[in-house]
Amino acid sequence: MNNNLSVCIMAGGVGQRFWPRSRESNPKQLINIIGDKPLITQTAERHFDKISPEKIFVITTKSQAEDISAALESVPKENIIAEPYGRNTAPCIGLVCALLAAKDPGTVLAVVSSDHWIPDVDVYLRTICDAAEVAVQEKALVTLGISPSFPETGYGYILAGEKINFSGETVFSKVEKFVEKPDKEKAEKLIKAGNAFWNAGMFVFQVAEMLNAFQKYMPDFYKGLIKIRDAAGNGNIETVIEEVYLIAPKISIDYAIMEKAENVIVGRCDFNWDDVGSWSSVSAHWPKDKNNNVIRGNVVTVDSSNCVIENTGKGVVGLVGVDDIVVVQTGDELLVCRKDKDQDVKKLVDKLKADPDLEKYTV
Amino acid sequence: MNNNLSVCIMAGGVGQRFWPRSRESNPKQLINIIGDKPLITQTAERHFDKISPEKIFVITTKSQAEDISAALESVPKENIIAEPYGRNTAPCIGLVCALLAAKDPGTVLAVVSSDHWIPDVDVYLRTICDAAEVAVQEKALVTLGISPSFPETGYGYILAGEKINFSGETVFSKVEKFVEKPDKEKAEKLIKAGNAFWNAGMFVFQVAEMLNAFQKYMPDFYKGLIKIRDAAGNGNIETVIEEVYLIAPKISIDYAIMEKAENVIVGRCDFNWDDVGSWSSVSAHWPKDKNNNVIRGNVVTVDSSNCVIENTGKGVVGLVGVDDIVVVQTGDELLVCRKDKDQDVKKLVDKLKADPDLEKYTV
Repeated sequence: MNNNLSVCIMAGGVGQRFWPRSRESNPKQLINIIGDKPLITQTAERHFDKISPEKIFVITTKSQAEDISAALESVPKENIIAEPYGRNTAPCIGLVCALLAAKDPGTVLAVVSSDHWIPDVDVYLRTICDAAEVAVQEKALVTLGISPSFPETGYGYILAGEKINFSGETVFSKVEKFVEKPDKEKAEKLIKAGNAFWNAGMFVFQVAEMLNAFQKYMPDFYKGLIKIRDAAGNGNIETVIEEVYLIAPKISIDYAIMEKAENVIVGRCDFNWDDVGSWSSVSAHWPKDKNNNVIRGNVVTVDSSNCVIENTGKGVVGLVGVDDIVVVQTGDELLVCRKDKDQDVKKLVDKLKADPDLEKYTV
Repeated sequence: MNNNLSVCIMAGGVGQRFWPRSRESNPKQLINIIGDKPLITQTAERHFDKISPEKIFVITTKSQAEDISAALESVPKENIIAEPYGRNTAPCIGLVCALLAAKDPGTVLAVVSSDHWIPDVDVYLRTICDAAEVAVQEKALVTLGISPSFPETGYGYILAGEKINFSGETVFSKVEKFVEKPDKEKAEKLIKAGNAFWNAGMFVFQVAEMLNAFQKYMPDFYKGLIKIRDAAGNGNIETVIEEVYLIAPKISIDYAIMEKAENVIVGRCDFNWDDVGSWSSVSAHWPKDKNNNVIRGNVVTVDSSNCVIENTGKGVVGLVGVDDIVVVQTGDELLVCRKDKDQDVKKLVDKLKADPDLEKYTV
């Protein structure tokens, strides 16, 4: 395994689809949506068998930094990096690369999300470590691909080409093409083709290689990254970051770098993975009662099945004769949602935000 | 109109089907389920055009007496009669008759429910006054019947026979038969027959006639009623009532008296009536939004229709993609119920009562 492997946990989102549990002040990654610990805590701890907490970094917003630090006791406070503004994933990953390059441009970095569910820790860690080896061996940017289990239209896809010669267990291939979120028909075709993976937004690369890619594909922003690298450890580092971010473009790492770079490799993930996209995904990973209901908190049901019910309020929730719905009660806020419409919780949050009297319930 | 007409409002129930708004400490009749005032306040005020508040009596439980008195400002406190124990409607009506007979056995009494919805006050009052006249004219016990609008299986039916000769607007007939709650097929047949009415539990009679009926059909209990009549106004009246109630049978006025008595007359109600039996009945009488939702309180909906949503909590309720459900949020308790299963809210309340930790949410 690569002793120079660090992890960067990206934790900038709010997770509107998990309203009312997720709020601007209490985002998805800080909630124990699945399991008994917040998702970000589970994410960090997932690495501890192979990667020490000192090598785990988090990039987040200023407003979340303190709560995240509290949720990650063993991760050093200075490893929690706060972006001055949200600028999508390209500037975010660039910033971490610049800061790490100041110490050691040979560092290999695994970039992962703070709010995904990955129960098979051993296989996951093996994959990350294999990817680190391949990234160095091939001087490549490695992206991790999930074998699609159904024609999901909410993810981008990665088409794998020629296999990479690698002695480890994980299978790596050259990336033939990135495919944007397809419609259902196209998704079905992609799955049939057999060489398609879901783009799960997990990347492994040597920091120097990623900075080379920034130089090539985002040359203006790269100049800013060099300023940051050179200011790292100085008293004015925050000001420099602020200046660079003020003019940084809002763009994803996929659009800005991965889809353009020449030496991109995809590693096949042989572990269970869920991006925990909305309340119904919770059904798949929580224990259920005999009527297939997922129940948390004081809940009593009569003739109700296939529901997800979470009561974190002080009182009691009673269900009578309902099926396939999500009920989330905090006491102050309540969500009742058809399970297959749970993506639209975002619309509800948008409606609340647009109402001066109700906006407070989203903050 | 009969100057000797008094009204007795029966207000002993809890209205479990309106949980969580209705509770033992806050029963259905004290809630503004329809309209802006509690149902019992609306019930009392419905009579004021023809019957003065001094002639309105309420019979209820000891635990509800004070709150009911507060809800009925203009009704004299001494007109609120508390039963020591609930013994169904026969002992309840017997008690009121005994107390009124002590003053004037010629009093005509209209017995009505505290928690029904009757918007056509003029027609209603005309019917009650006509019934009072007929009761005296025919020395009869008059029951009021609602023309059935659909084959409801939750009510008993009254079959009307020979018409009574009466000069007023309301149509009265001899009762041919009382029919217990029928199944759907039987209910359909009854409606087709054309002479069937819903038994709405409203009765009009001269107090002396009802006491005669008690003497004939409940002779033991009648002796108790005479003791109560003779003790009325004395210092020991409460002890006497308590003694009589301790051995009073639990039986309804329908079973005990009406179905047996010979001179029973049914008056046809030509007014809108709803016994407000459960949450879905609220849909029929409340204003709706453009998606046919009845909404009270802070509620935001996305793609949701035909729902009844009441939020009396401090926060907000959000609905996404749900149809035909009832959502009642108090903040401490929450009900989510399929609209056509709202009779089963009772089952939920029974389940809560059976759980020592949750029982408190029903009290």
